[in-house]
Amino acid sequence: MPSTMPVRALWYSGGRLHLIDQRKLPGRKVILQLSKVEQVAEAIRTLTVRGAPAIGVAAAFGMVLAARGGRSSRFAAKLLGSTRPTAVDLFVGIDTVRGVWDRGGDPLAAAEGYRERIVEQCHQIGEAGASLFERRPRVLTHCNAGALATVEWGTSLAPLRVARGRGAPIFVWVDETRPLLQGSRLTAWELREEGIPHAVIADNAGGYFMRAGEVDAVIVGADRIARNGDVANKIGTYEKAVVARENHLPFYVAAPWSTFDVRRSTGRAIPVEERAEGEVLEFAGHRTAPSGSRARNPAFDVTPARYVTAFITPGGVVRPAGLARALRSRPEDARGQGSW
Amino acid sequence: MPSTMPVRALWYSGGRLHLIDQRKLPGRKVILQLSKVEQVAEAIRTLTVRGAPAIGVAAAFGMVLAARGGRSSRFAAKLLGSTRPTAVDLFVGIDTVRGVWDRGGDPLAAAEGYRERIVEQCHQIGEAGASLFERRPRVLTHCNAGALATVEWGTSLAPLRVARGRGAPIFVWVDETRPLLQGSRLTAWELREEGIPHAVIADNAGGYFMRAGEVDAVIVGADRIARNGDVANKIGTYEKAVVARENHLPFYVAAPWSTFDVRRSTGRAIPVEERAEGEVLEFAGHRTAPSGSRARNPAFDVTPARYVTAFITPGGVVRPAGLARALRSRPEDARGQGSW
Repeated sequence: MPSTMPVRALWYSGGRLHLIDQRKLPGRKVILQLSKVEQVAEAIRTLTVRGAPAIGVAAAFGMVLAARGGRSSRFAAKLLGSTRPTAVDLFVGIDTVRGVWDRGGDPLAAAEGYRERIVEQCHQIGEAGASLFERRPRVLTHCNAGALATVEWGTSLAPLRVARGRGAPIFVWVDETRPLLQGSRLTAWELREEGIPHAVIADNAGGYFMRAGEVDAVIVGADRIARNGDVANKIGTYEKAVVARENHLPFYVAAPWSTFDVRRSTGRAIPVEERAEGEVLEFAGHRTAPSGSRARNPAFDVTPARYVTAFITPGGVVRPAGLARALRSRPEDARGQGSW
Repeated sequence: MPSTMPVRALWYSGGRLHLIDQRKLPGRKVILQLSKVEQVAEAIRTLTVRGAPAIGVAAAFGMVLAARGGRSSRFAAKLLGSTRPTAVDLFVGIDTVRGVWDRGGDPLAAAEGYRERIVEQCHQIGEAGASLFERRPRVLTHCNAGALATVEWGTSLAPLRVARGRGAPIFVWVDETRPLLQGSRLTAWELREEGIPHAVIADNAGGYFMRAGEVDAVIVGADRIARNGDVANKIGTYEKAVVARENHLPFYVAAPWSTFDVRRSTGRAIPVEERAEGEVLEFAGHRTAPSGSRARNPAFDVTPARYVTAFITPGGVVRPAGLARALRSRPEDARGQGSW
């Protein structure tokens, strides 16, 4: 395994799940210690921990806490599975631990193994994708698919980190990512922690810089990828993909195996979470729209596979047309095992 | 002239320019009274008054205050013209009054005439465009091109107001319009004042609702339109235009004659204002990005004419291919007269 990164989203020790409270960033770095499955469910629901791979790992440790607390695996799986609907990793993390638990195995060993595989896969994504950005170093990313979203390395940020380690002059255009600002709050924070050059931009400005020739490529993570390559990811991803194609720029999606939902043939029926209106109508307790105005707040959108140049997976760079084959040949322990 | 609207952005009386302080909306409706040209320049620079047609009218009255204060027309034109670079209406408003003043005419009569023509043209835009939305009533708009941006009626909102007056079930998708939130703060406020149904959405969400079949058309205003139909408008307009076309939705641009820059053959060289980083890095006085992170903040982008379905002008609905001809046949008093 590679050495650990400057930023780790969560870890388990002394019978507690430790995690960075991502709601408090970038102002303060607060570490929470959770000892009950209910606290883990609440942390996922409130986006205290977020990012598809990271919530999968958090849920895996939530199952461990449930086992230690004398809860049933069925209760814990249902509780954790009810927190957020879109990221498929959540269900993979739950089911990986539940499978071991229900057969009398050690939930903690299962959760630690799951975490290690996610971290290793993110590092593999970095190695697999780095060369794409050595000649295309000015990269736009949306939301946060960094270490905070994946425990370590990140998905979309992993190839950029590896490319930079190889000497590429990486510069990251950071979409602020309304409404919850995961770009300006979290991605910019990670990049600053490592001294990677970047600029935060309003989500509206990506197309401007693409047209101005100041963007070489776009990379995002994913919350769920269907077998045909349709990608559910943070709201706004679809627009970036369309505008990237219009500007003849490659659009990459980086994800570990847990994000591929092989049971789903297309993205059409992926459930999209619609969150509270207040996230759009207020900011930091400050009303931005008039009282009486309503909002709509879908948290994700689905980008059709035809806009994706390639997927950067732990097994290599895969064009959408080759995805089904790549999924069949992925490692056995990355296939998921649940019945969700 | 039609009766005035519930919302008026500015008016002149008792030797003072009165204007709604748009920085305070939607929380408070504060009317400022300005008696010096320097105050008007500052109001334009700080976005206390904004929107291309409205700043043209504000600048016209700024010239009046300069004349009353014993300033030279040259000084006043230079001061007002230095405030913001992109909206061409600013220069048309200044030059309209200056032309009269320099020939010994009455600046106030010239400014009042200019204001009346803008209001009348906005009403004509409403009449010209309304039928487009009677069968396409669910309309997405970006930024604010309503009464606040144009004195009365608006440009993009005028056809929606007229269509609603004719009984169409208008519903407006209001892009919040980061970084300064002119959509959630101003457009939503105008719509709420009139009871027009609407929902505020993060700028990232427009494509989601287009793909979901919940948007029938897109309409925006403009800050400057080149002879070939390239449109400078609020940052993010270009992305909406691309995504609208991708979804086979009409994309309309509504503007009075003062917004057409007939001296410019294409949008390539339209100056785009880049504003302070803090507008992106902070939100309501609250830092959203880590200290040490930088931002880029272009306030406008240029949408190529090929994405525009039609322009809604005071003279009717005009396809980009017919624009040059429409501009040649516009009324004499709408042709501008300056040397900017």
